[in-house]
Order: sequence, then C-alpha cells, then structure tokens
Amino acid sequence: MPNPLIIEPIVRSALLEDLGRAGDLTTDAIVPDDAIAKAGLAARRSGRVAGLAAAIAAFRLLDPFAVIDILCGDGGDIAAGATIATIHGRARAILTGERTALNLLGRLSGIATATRALVAAVAGTQARIVCTRKTTPGLRALEKHAVRLGGGFNHRYGLDDAVLIKDNHIAIAGGVAAAVGRVRAGLGHMVKIEVEVDTLVQLAELLTLPVDAVLLDNMTPEQLRQAVAMVDRRMLTEASGNVTAATVRAIAESGVDMISVGWLTHSAPNLDIGLDIEFADDPDLRPDLRPEPGLTP
Amino acid sequence: MPNPLIIEPIVRSALLEDLGRAGDLTTDAIVPDDAIAKAGLAARRSGRVAGLAAAIAAFRLLDPFAVIDILCGDGGDIAAGATIATIHGRARAILTGERTALNLLGRLSGIATATRALVAAVAGTQARIVCTRKTTPGLRALEKHAVRLGGGFNHRYGLDDAVLIKDNHIAIAGGVAAAVGRVRAGLGHMVKIEVEVDTLVQLAELLTLPVDAVLLDNMTPEQLRQAVAMVDRRMLTEASGNVTAATVRAIAESGVDMISVGWLTHSAPNLDIGLDIEFADDPDLRPDLRPEPGLTP
Amino acid sequence: MPNPLIIEPIVRSALLEDLGRAGDLTTDAIVPDDAIAKAGLAARRSGRVAGLAAAIAAFRLLDPFAVIDILCGDGGDIAAGATIATIHGRARAILTGERTALNLLGRLSGIATATRALVAAVAGTQARIVCTRKTTPGLRALEKHAVRLGGGFNHRYGLDDAVLIKDNHIAIAGGVAAAVGRVRAGLGHMVKIEVEVDTLVQLAELLTLPVDAVLLDNMTPEQLRQAVAMVDRRMLTEASGNVTAATVRAIAESGVDMISVGWLTHSAPNLDIGLDIEFADDPDLRPDLRPEPGLTP
Amino acid sequence: MPNPLIIEPIVRSALLEDLGRAGDLTTDAIVPDDAIAKAGLAARRSGRVAGLAAAIAAFRLLDPFAVIDILCGDGGDIAAGATIATIHGRARAILTGERTALNLLGRLSGIATATRALVAAVAGTQARIVCTRKTTPGLRALEKHAVRLGGGFNHRYGLDDAVLIKDNHIAIAGGVAAAVGRVRAGLGHMVKIEVEVDTLVQLAELLTLPVDAVLLDNMTPEQLRQAVAMVDRRMLTEASGNVTAATVRAIAESGVDMISVGWLTHSAPNLDIGLDIEFADDPDLRPDLRPEPGLTP
Amino acid sequence: MPNPLIIEPIVRSALLEDLGRAGDLTTDAIVPDDAIAKAGLAARRSGRVAGLAAAIAAFRLLDPFAVIDILCGDGGDIAAGATIATIHGRARAILTGERTALNLLGRLSGIATATRALVAAVAGTQARIVCTRKTTPGLRALEKHAVRLGGGFNHRYGLDDAVLIKDNHIAIAGGVAAAVGRVRAGLGHMVKIEVEVDTLVQLAELLTLPVDAVLLDNMTPEQLRQAVAMVDRRMLTEASGNVTAATVRAIAESGVDMISVGWLTHSAPNLDIGLDIEFADDPDLRPDLRPEPGLTP
Amino acid sequence: MPNPLIIEPIVRSALLEDLGRAGDLTTDAIVPDDAIAKAGLAARRSGRVAGLAAAIAAFRLLDPFAVIDILCGDGGDIAAGATIATIHGRARAILTGERTALNLLGRLSGIATATRALVAAVAGTQARIVCTRKTTPGLRALEKHAVRLGGGFNHRYGLDDAVLIKDNHIAIAGGVAAAVGRVRAGLGHMVKIEVEVDTLVQLAELLTLPVDAVLLDNMTPEQLRQAVAMVDRRMLTEASGNVTAATVRAIAESGVDMISVGWLTHSAPNLDIGLDIEFADDPDLRPDLRPEPGLTP
Repeated sequence: MPNPLIIEPIVRSALLEDLGRAGDLTTDAIVPDDAIAKAGLAARRSGRVAGLAAAIAAFRLLDPFAVIDILCGDGGDIAAGATIATIHGRARAILTGERTALNLLGRLSGIATATRALVAAVAGTQARIVCTRKTTPGLRALEKHAVRLGGGFNHRYGLDDAVLIKDNHIAIAGGVAAAVGRVRAGLGHMVKIEVEVDTLVQLAELLTLPVDAVLLDNMTPEQLRQAVAMVDRRMLTEASGNVTAATVRAIAESGVDMISVGWLTHSAPNLDIGLDIEFADDPDLRPDLRPEPGLTP
Repeated sequence: MPNPLIIEPIVRSALLEDLGRAGDLTTDAIVPDDAIAKAGLAARRSGRVAGLAAAIAAFRLLDPFAVIDILCGDGGDIAAGATIATIHGRARAILTGERTALNLLGRLSGIATATRALVAAVAGTQARIVCTRKTTPGLRALEKHAVRLGGGFNHRYGLDDAVLIKDNHIAIAGGVAAAVGRVRAGLGHMVKIEVEVDTLVQLAELLTLPVDAVLLDNMTPEQLRQAVAMVDRRMLTEASGNVTAATVRAIAESGVDMISVGWLTHSAPNLDIGLDIEFADDPDLRPDLRPEPGLTP
Repeated sequence: MPNPLIIEPIVRSALLEDLGRAGDLTTDAIVPDDAIAKAGLAARRSGRVAGLAAAIAAFRLLDPFAVIDILCGDGGDIAAGATIATIHGRARAILTGERTALNLLGRLSGIATATRALVAAVAGTQARIVCTRKTTPGLRALEKHAVRLGGGFNHRYGLDDAVLIKDNHIAIAGGVAAAVGRVRAGLGHMVKIEVEVDTLVQLAELLTLPVDAVLLDNMTPEQLRQAVAMVDRRMLTEASGNVTAATVRAIAESGVDMISVGWLTHSAPNLDIGLDIEFADDPDLRPDLRPEPGLTP
Repeated sequence: MPNPLIIEPIVRSALLEDLGRAGDLTTDAIVPDDAIAKAGLAARRSGRVAGLAAAIAAFRLLDPFAVIDILCGDGGDIAAGATIATIHGRARAILTGERTALNLLGRLSGIATATRALVAAVAGTQARIVCTRKTTPGLRALEKHAVRLGGGFNHRYGLDDAVLIKDNHIAIAGGVAAAVGRVRAGLGHMVKIEVEVDTLVQLAELLTLPVDAVLLDNMTPEQLRQAVAMVDRRMLTEASGNVTAATVRAIAESGVDMISVGWLTHSAPNLDIGLDIEFADDPDLRPDLRPEPGLTP
Repeated sequence: MPNPLIIEPIVRSALLEDLGRAGDLTTDAIVPDDAIAKAGLAARRSGRVAGLAAAIAAFRLLDPFAVIDILCGDGGDIAAGATIATIHGRARAILTGERTALNLLGRLSGIATATRALVAAVAGTQARIVCTRKTTPGLRALEKHAVRLGGGFNHRYGLDDAVLIKDNHIAIAGGVAAAVGRVRAGLGHMVKIEVEVDTLVQLAELLTLPVDAVLLDNMTPEQLRQAVAMVDRRMLTEASGNVTAATVRAIAESGVDMISVGWLTHSAPNLDIGLDIEFADDPDLRPDLRPEPGLTP
Repeated sequence: MPNPLIIEPIVRSALLEDLGRAGDLTTDAIVPDDAIAKAGLAARRSGRVAGLAAAIAAFRLLDPFAVIDILCGDGGDIAAGATIATIHGRARAILTGERTALNLLGRLSGIATATRALVAAVAGTQARIVCTRKTTPGLRALEKHAVRLGGGFNHRYGLDDAVLIKDNHIAIAGGVAAAVGRVRAGLGHMVKIEVEVDTLVQLAELLTLPVDAVLLDNMTPEQLRQAVAMVDRRMLTEASGNVTAATVRAIAESGVDMISVGWLTHSAPNLDIGLDIEFADDPDLRPDLRPEPGLTP
C-alpha cells in the first residue's frame, strides 16, 4: 500500500488544478447548493480496478458527508457496464469532482488492467512482471500500487532504496568490479545491488561479484535462456526491453525471475470509466446528507 | 505558454519523488562529486518535441551551472536518432536527473507527437484538433501546452474558465433553456457557454438559445454533417467521441469547427527518448563548471 | 462560488500569521482550556454580508466542534447592531480566532457593501457593475465572490481565462488588427477577446474586427453615449475610469453594458463588525462541547 | 524590516493567482518571447513609497535578469507623475507582472501615505502613530512595515509577542488583578503586558498593578488628558478609537504616548501607481538581456 | 501553549519522512487491514511528560477513529513502567505510527524532564530556569513548550519578538549607548530590550541606560552576586554559561532573576518511552472501530 | 549524500521559525543595510564536522552573494579553536543567520562526533556502527548522513525501503515463518528482510527461513557470540540495546556484523561551535559584495 498520507495531497492538487480560482462555473450556476444526488462509477470496459481510494477522496474533499458504497474494490475485476462504487451526497460535489475522480481512476485502472494481461500471459512460469521508475511525475506511489493490484511487483521505488549499476556508472568507475566495490563499501546492509548487462560476456564477469540481481537488457529469449543457465541461481535474473503482450510469454519461458516493463506505467491506456447520475432524491427526505448552510466544505 | 512559475514546482516534486530521502545511492557511491560529463537527449523515434523546459529544469535544479545547448526546441520535429539538447555539467546531476527529465520529456513529446498526427490527418479541412480536461492529475498545464505544440488547440483549462452544460445539468435545471438562462444570469461577460447535445432534436432546441458553441457528442460523420448544416454558422460546432487516426478525417470533413480528443492527454504513448553520456571531459580543464566544494546544489 | 478548497488554506495561513509560534499568550494564560463561551458576530454598521464561510473556518480550525448558527448568511443585508452569526464552543478558540475572522469578514463585507451601493445607483439601467484584477494579493477569489454577493459581476479572474488587449499589446503588434489576428490564431474557441480603446477613432477601427467586447477607458458620459451608438450591439461595451458613487449613474445612462470599478476590491473600506461574548455557560452543563483533554485541535 | 524570506512566497502566490494555469493569454499571443522593453513605475498621485521590494520581486520571478533602477526607494516621498523605478528586461515579464506588482505597491504605498499624513498631523507632540492587528490576511508583515515607512510604529505583530488584556479576559479571570496575575505567573521576562480600559475608574484600579502600558479605548481628548495625568508616567498610554485626520491632533495633544489606528492597514485607499512602457529597445542591441531560448524563467 | 495549528504539519511531515512513498512494507504485508489492537505508551524511566498531543496526532493521522485514553497528560510526572496513554484502533496505524510518535514524545519529555531537574535544584530561590533559541530546527515551539511543562520559562521565541543586544551589535553601533539608542528609536512600545555584558565594567555603563534586562554571560557566582547588587532591581538579571545540574544552585543563590540554559533544548537526552501492544481484540467485536473498506485514512 | 533538494527547505523553515514575521529586530535596528562583515565558524571543542552545507545555506538564503571559504569540510576532523569556514558578506545576513546555522551545524557535528567515537572504539573488529529510525522529526536525512560522515553506516531510512519484522508482527502473523512468508509473497526483489529475535531459541527457528539479516536485541556479549556461531555466516547479524562507549567494544568482539545505536541520532550532545565576527571591512572597499539597494535577498 502506498503511504496513505500522500493520497489526499495528490487529489487536492488535482482538484485545485481543475477548479481554479472561480470553481465550477457551470455547476454552481445551475445546481442548487442543497441538491442531493446519487451517482455510480461505471466501467465502460472490463478491467482491473485501481485508484478507488483516490477517486473517493476527490468526492470526500468536496462533500465530507457523502455516503460511499464500494461494489468492486481496488484489485477487483470489473465487467463492462458494471458499477464500481456509488456516491450519495451533494449533487454539486458529485458533478464538480467527477472529472478529477475519473482521471485518477481511469489511469490507475488502466495500469492495473494492462498488468493483469501480462501476468496472465506468463501464468505457469516462474516470472514476475515488475514495473520501473518510468512513472508519471507526481503519481509514482499510486502507479506502483496499481501494478501490484494488477498482479505485478515493484522494482525499486526510487534512486534511494536500492542500487542499480548501469553502463555509465561502470564506465566512470573503470569497470564493474570497481563499481560494485565502491557501492559495497559505502552502503548499509539492507540495500540490495543489481547490475545491468547487455551481453553474456559482461554477465560472465559479473558472476564473480557479490551482487543480488542482474538486469539482462534487450536480450533475445534464447540469450536469456543462456544467461539463466550461466547464473544458475547465484543471483536473481531480470529481463527488460521489447516486452509486449506478444513477446512476454517467450521471455518468461527463458526462466528469468522477473520481467520489467516500462510502458506499464508510462503508456498503458486509461480504462474507460464513466459516472452515471440519478437525481431521484428529494433533499427533504435526506436531511442528514444536507450540508450546514454556508459551511461547506 | 503555461504559467512559467508552475514548471519548477512540478519538476522539483518529481525529483523529490525519485530521490527520496537518501538521494541517488548508486551515483553518489560511484561518481566523484567533481566529475564533469556531457550528455545528449536523443530521440529514439521521430516525433514532435514538447516538455524541454521541464526536462532542463530537472538538470538545473541539481546543477545550476550546467551548460545547456538546445538543438531542437519545443515544437520542433525531431528525427529518430537526432539529439534534442545537450547538457554539460556535473556528472552526478546528469545521472541523477536523467529519469525525471525523460519521464517528463517523453510524456509531453508523446502528446505533441500524437496531436501532430491528427492535425496532419485533417489538413485542408477547417477543423481544429482540441484536447479536453481528461489530463494527468498535476500535469494539466504542461499537457495542454504539449497539445498546442503539436498543432492542436485547447478547450477550456478547467471548470472555472468557461461553461460547458451537459445532460446532468440540463436534467437538474429542468431543460436546456432554463440551464442556459441560469448561467447567463450569473456569469461575467467574458465567459463563453457551450452545450452538449446527443441528438439533432436536442440541437434544434438549442439553436434558439444564446450560446457560443455546441458539443456534438458521439455522432456519426453523417449526423455531424446534418448538424453543421442546421447550425449554419450561428455557433461553433465541436465533435467528440470515437476519434481515432482512422476516423478523424471523415469527422473533419463533416464541416465541424473542432474535434475534441480525450485520449491525446490521457492515453497517448510516450515518445521514446534516451540520454547518452560522454565522459571525455577532464574536470581540471573545465574549472568553471566545477561546483564550490560542499555547497551544491 | 470560489473554489471551496481554497478557503481553508487562506484562513489557516491568516491564523498562523496571527498566532505565530507561541500562540495566544494572553488567552492561554487567562482562559482555562475547558471554558465554554458563546459569541455573536455583530455588525456595527449596516451592510451586505460576505466572507462568512471564511470567518467560520477561522473558529472551526481552532475548535472543530463549535456550534455555529447563521442568522444572516453571505449575500444577506444586515442592519447596524444585528447579529450575523453565533459561535458556541471553546472560549479560547473564540477569543483567539476573533481577529482573523473579523479581518476577513470585515474586508469582504466591505467590498459587498460598496458594490451594493453602486448596483443600487444604476438600478433601472442595463449596466452591470464589474470588478477588475486590482485585488488584494492572495484574496482574489474571495474578493471577486464578494463583488457578486454585492450584486456585481466579475470581469476575467486572471490573465489566463480571457483576453484583454491594451495599448502596449497593440503597440508591439503594430496595430490593433495585427494584435487581434495573433490572438485569434492561437487561442481556443472558448476564450473571449476584449480590446481597450481610449478614443472614438480607435473604436471605429476596432468595429471591423472579430472581438467580443470593447473597454472604453476614461471617456465622459457623452463620449460613452456616442461609443454605444457606434457599436450598435455588435460587441459588448464596458466603461472604466473615474467611477464613483457620484458619477456611476451618468455613466450607466450612456447605455454601456458594464462599468468596471477597480477600487471595489482594492480600496473599499472594511465593514465594521465586532464580536460580542457571553460567558454564561457552565462547562459542566455542556460536556458535549468540551474537547477531549490534550487533543485539541 | 519584515522577515526577508517571506516576500518571495507572497509575490509568487500572487502571481500564481493571476496567471492561473494557462499564463497570460494576451501577452503570450502577441509579444515575441525575445522582445525587450523598458518600463517605469510612475506615481499618478504624490505619496510615500512602500512595497518596492515586493513589486520588484514580481518582475524578477518572471525575468531573473531584468535590470532594475530605483529612483525613489521604500520610505521616499514621490511626487505625482514622478518615476519610482524602471525595469529593463523581457517585455513579456513586464506586461505579465505589471498588475501583481502594482497591486502590492499600490496597497503598501497607500498605507505608508496615510500613515505619513497622520504622523504629520501630530508633529510636535510626543505621540506615536501605531497600527493594530487589523491587517489584510496574508500581508501583515508587509503592511506593518509600510506603517513604519510612513513614520509610524508597530504595536504587537501577533497574539504571540506581547500581552494585551481586554474586557473579555478580565471577565473570565474575575477581575483585572487576577488577569494580570495569571499572565505574570506564566510568561517569560521579555514579554510586555498592556491592559485595555474604557473608563477612568478602571484605570484607577489598573494603576496599582505591574503592567507596562494601558490602552485607553474610545475616550474623548478630555478624558485622555485626565488619564494621562492619573498615569503620571507610571506606564505607557495608548489611545484608540475614532482616530481620523480631523481628530488625531486633539488626541495627541492629550499627552498620550501612542495613538493606534486600525484603518491604516484595513481601509487606507491604494496609492495610484501605474506602469508606463517604452519599446524603443531593439533586442539585437541588448543581447545580454535576452533569455536563453526555452529556459525562462 | 504553542500555536495549535503547527502541531499537525510537524507530525505529518515526520510521518511522511518515515513512510516514504511505499508506506510500511512490513506491517502492510503482515497485518490485515481490519485488524484492531490496543497499545500503551509506557515510560521505561521516570520523567515529566511532554509532547503527548504530537504523539497522539501521529496515530490520529493514520486512524482518525482511534480511541485515546490519557492517563498522564502533558506536564504530569510519570513513574518508570507506568502508562502515559493508550490507543485503541487499527493495528496498522498503531504499528506504523509508533516510531514517529515515540520520537516526538521521547524528545519533548526528555526536555521537560531535564528542565524539571534544574527547577527542582533551584527551589526556594527566586531564579527561573529559561531556555534559549538553541532549539532543534523545525521544533522550536514544541521544545519551548516542553520547557514550560518542565517548570521553566521561555526567553524570546525568535529574533522578532524581543531585542537582545550582543557584543557584535555594540561594536557596530560604536558603543552600548548608541546601540540602545538606535533600538529605542525604531521599535514599538511592546518590545523589551536586553543587553549582554561580560564584565562588571560593562554592566556599570549599562545601568545608566533604559533597558529592561541584562544578560550576565559566563560570570562566576561571586561575580553574579556583585552584579545583582549593582543592578539593585533596576532591571532584570539573567545568568548564562556553564549551567549544569552541579552549578545551577550556586548560580541561583547569587540572586539573579533568570538562568538560561541552551542545552535543555539542544542536548537533553530523550526520555525512554516505548509502546506495548496487545492484540486481544477480535475485530468482529469492535465493528465501530473498523475502517470503511478502502477508504482509510 | 542525502537528497540535495531537501536541504534548502529545512534551512528555510528553520530561518522562518527564528525570524518570524518581523525579522531580526535587534540587527535591523543597529546594523546598516550595507555593512559588510567577515565571520568564522569556530569549533569550541574538537570533533567531526557535519552539516556544513546546511549551515552555509542559512547564510546564502539571506545573502546570495556571500563569499564562503571552507577550511574543514563535512567529514573532516576539527581541533578545538580551529575555524571550519568563513563567511564574507552582508553583516546583517551573518548576524541574523548565525543561530540557525549553528543549531544545524552543532547538532549534526555532534552526531558525527559521537559516531566517530564509537567507530574508533570498535576499530579492528568487523563490526559496523549503524543508526536507527530514532531520529529528530524533520531531520532524518541530514542525521543519517551525519552518521556516515562519522564513519558509521545507515540501517533502513524508513518503513518503506526494507523490511524489519518485530515481535508484534510475528504475533499477529502467528509465527515467524508465517510472517516471513507473507512478506516474501508480496514484496519486490530489491527489498531485504531482517527479523528481530530476543533469544537464541527464536534464532534457531529463524535460521531455517529465507531472511537476509537478524537483529539480536538486548543480548549480552556472550549470547551474541553464541548467536554469531549459530548463524555461521548464513545471514548478517546485528546487535542492539545497551550500546555505550563502555560496552561497544565487547559487543563488537562477539563477531556481529553491525551494532545499531539509537541514541546517536536522538541524544548525542551538540558539538559546541560558535561564530566569531570581525567588522574591519569598509563597505566602500568591497562594492562587489554590496547588495543592490532595496532588493535583497
């Protein structure tokens, strides 16, 4: 679960971005302050739900007393046309918060849904689908959580929680052994080290060093198979590059432990989710939902 | 141009998200504090550049004295393999800022590139390609600017700068005439009003009312053609729904003034851009680029 | 209504500014933590109420459980000596929040009251009273809302939601036609354009261009009358400059659509509002209002 | 001098409020990115200058390389028509920052000018003009500084830096002696204590207590004279209530040490200041002022 | 009491610092979302409690519905092994918030406990123990409050609420009389002035000037006694330098009014406080404590 | 190195806390705006320097043009009386920034110095000294860096970058094997797992599980020796509890890999560092250091 304290600031800032200074001109002019409505968040296509807490926060920030019913929570599979959750509260809050809620829910569910597809494609192999640091600026924690809701796993969260040595680091250090040595000398005992290699020759050199994992970049399934054999369980193996729905199975069958996929977080298409409103409620019948005059939110 | 003061906070927060508390463990352990490097931001695929100011800000925040050369600025067309800009400065800043810079540049260039394709597809018609409020939370101003760099135009920026009356508003108001009336009564003279219709019957009713534009939602090209004829220049016409590279030309040829496309900002794939580093510089030869010890950034 | 999420940050920052680090030295030393009081916000002079939500937020931030009764809400007319609202809760919160609440309520009610006077002065004409961007830094959304509560209307909220072309823009563009052309070429279809003119000669040139409104700056009522005749409903007309209680009626009778008044938001005097406290309550009789020990706020 | 680190955040937030997400639509469409201009901040009426640092910060945030010339600094007296300062730099920064700079400069100079008038009116007496906590939310430090630039002095800055015991505190404490006693018992030795009294009877009781100053509220000049005699230098005397340009001299002649005036900070009219632009510069002649392409600000 | 609005931001930022982006990996993986627990904050050593509001805020931010029982509030004396407060609520919130709560509670109680010891050591003298501006960056208000809970008093809170003239100021002004004169000329009437002296010669010069207090720096008890005699109640006397548990009594017996101690806030050792958890609760028995699914916090 | 972007916000907020709204009353009244001074940060006691970047930032925020000379950088050993760095710039900036700079430098150098002592005490053993999460709220990244400058190492930075399973987690999971299993199932491959044990019996059970490290809590050196033998290099061993200068050598000689010490970051005494000023500079001789009038900072 991402740090729970970061969701509200993200949603608040998204709402500020949409409401600007003057607020929702259309809704404020047309919808009475005390109108009550009920709305459903409905999937237009089937997929895996993610981001529901963020979507709900958008409505709650505009109407703290709204009643929310969750029919298909984060991590659940939703059918096209089915309702994910309902919101019952101030009509203005529902109409004004709609786009912000959907922008978050659609993006995160899109990531979970794309992840789910890759996870399904490698079912039966030992390979885990993992995401990268190629995330949307400002949304990393939510996007990495969405990958996990899709059945995937997370690589490091940032530059600060694990070591990944790439070619440029090796070049500056003057060789992979020197690079690994410098890192080992300075870091705490709870930090893991992974090294990126492009060739089996580089891999052979790496196998003598105390590292936890190897990133096998842009190799063919056949090269990956050889690499897995060379490693022989001495470290974890991760494949990256050219991973698509079409290629992922072959990559997984090479025997690698992980397959990392950048596009899951930067280019997965949104899941199409909409908001359907009913206005059947008579405000006089639901006085408990009506805001104190002049005080909301 | 987006508000220039919002770029730095977005980039700063993206860097904080990636560097966490402990900073770049790998680079700090391997790369000396005074090492100088030069790097190029290189397009792996051809596209339209957007987001360069944000990408550069990522490096500048980590090395205020870096020297930047822009070879293909925002709004320029870049060929696959060509270099967008070079950064010459502290090696640590380049390695640490790389991912944040690329995440921003790739996403925004992806949007500009997708927009460019749609704009090209409707060339010769009068139709403008416009984006919507379906943007990434926190990045709206940058994404809307990217659409413009791609040759598109922006619909309203938020709920606060123009009025768009949708079916739910009409239902609450008790009819489109009442909805338009309420809005006209309360709003300033510099605010425009657009109304969404789903059918030609609704359109006919709307034509008697003082509105500036009509959003024709989910109509076929043939329906759009009829709608354009009915409107006969009395208001602007905007088509939305089911817009793809394959359909956009036919929609444009219906004669509508605008075609709005939500996926441009929420689901356009990133443009693949990488960072290539040369380490030829000898720090002793470039003392002007070396940070004051202990004082950076 | 202004964006509802911006009120609390404004009030919180005003309270922080008043309480500093050490809090309310006087009240904390003298008033017991569990003392309960009831207070009334009373108008010392008659006027139009605005800013009540902000004033109440000041007390609520210091005592979330205070009971508020609103006797004359935002937009209501209050007589001298009458009570706008009562607050029943922790005595410390009432005494400590008093000045912040009154500073906000007094300023915003002052603006609403001054607006009301101008609106009354032009009653029966078609002219709307509108405010400008000459607002107090940090309070624009609240001040523009206060103008609306006073019966006025808002011009654009900022530089970003409408176009106003002034003499400097025209000089740089090399003429008004060029200026309007550049703007039309680049902006979205939901943005309106207004142009400022100082003379009837400039107005004549403008009338051939596709703009939505004209700002007639510093003209006499007679010049305004001529201008209105020249425009002949082809665009909206707005008068500005030298608008006072004494002159506004004559300006309105020229037939202009809007009269914009900068001093409404930058120099309207505060409405004098005070806070009267009764300490009759015995805390033991109102246990429901007493804070959990050590936990407030 | 106010805390220098608070000026930039205030100005930045004022600019954000004006530029919104989309920035200055008009200027960006019309004025080329590399156009250079020179502008003067010119007083339309005579007055005392205050807020220049804030005004300049507005331009500097948009163009860090602008060249500023100050002709009449904070605290100087400016004649109608004279120039306070000139700004030479990016034309866009000047046009876009104009309103924010003027809003700050006009308000603060208005306060300084009003203060100057009161100070002049009491010249030759021992009375100091002091301001109160009735300030604009968010601008207190700047407004209190403006009072000092006008020749006045500041009362406490907030609830946290001095003690002012009012009637409500006395009522809760059960008498003025008890109130003073509670405060003395708990506070540090660097905090001063002032007590508000409405009558000479209350003053007589107060004179036996260890307080530093007395606030004589709403007394006539004759009552003030008696009060000053009764106090006989044992504590500082401060008059408040009904202070206007017409009454202040008589109040001062009563012999009080201070006269506090709430309206100086909440209702002083803005000083009318404008910005005049010349566009004589040819950008090619001033390459040092031109921004690095794509990098500003 | 410190400004109550500053506690939550401090605690929130401390939690963000501990939870990072990914949250509590261990607890989230092991503890079910709906598990309920009860925990006690228990003193491992005896001391004076301070910081309880901050500690509780840490749990409340993670579980707004937790039930808190305070057994020994701020300012109370706790025996080793005794329980300060209990928290009954979501098990995840208790485990995740534990370290942040204890870091705050331990530090602030450490300060209160150290203060209590010095206060006890000077019992029967007239000397007050006061703290300085040598506080932990970001925690000044809480630390100064902890000193008061320990029975001490606060010197000025910052550079802005009182004047302390030190040797460097005197050197620049060209003498203590000039320094005091400059300060008197410019400051408000509610600000007190203290001057630091190192020798009795300097003190003799100071006695002719209108200052409120003198800081006698690094004097022996005998020198202090002489200084107190010289001052003879004309101003307050404060001793500083070399104050330890061993020396404080002798310093107090010199007759000074205050003894200021920098290490109270920068080097007092934490009070050892731990958190003991019982997991006896069955969630089904406490449905009122269970979070709404998917919605916390 | 900590995330470089977090230093300035910490220092800025510390300065705001000290300067409040009104700034440095004493210095502003006495020291001319254009006075130039030179000051040295001098160690009053010998120690290891840490926090210099933060200290310098305090001066730079108040005078961006100050010239800094570093004589003994972060991680250097300073003798009592020696100068760490000099600052040459605006006298006001030096006097106003002094306390904030020293508060940061003293605390962080205190931590580095205490760490250095423990590291020296275990010299020749294989044991590393490591810190914990018992840090000062808001300063964790700086404090953990100070430990490294002292020759120590860091345990995990927060709850989010490594797993540490404690007794409460084990109790909830129903046993250590279950707890480890749940964690292994859900976490990414770059996260390490450590488990806390109190007894050798618990250790024996742990040895069969796939964990990276064991925390041996509150064991005697003899128990630690047995534990190290039992583990026999299968995982890393860490000792905690009762670590003092007197006991650390014996603990290290047990053969453990790490010794974690909470008090290093929460209770290490500040290193005594002062600021010595010379005012010999004549401002006319150093025009390059003088601020643009009215514009600083």
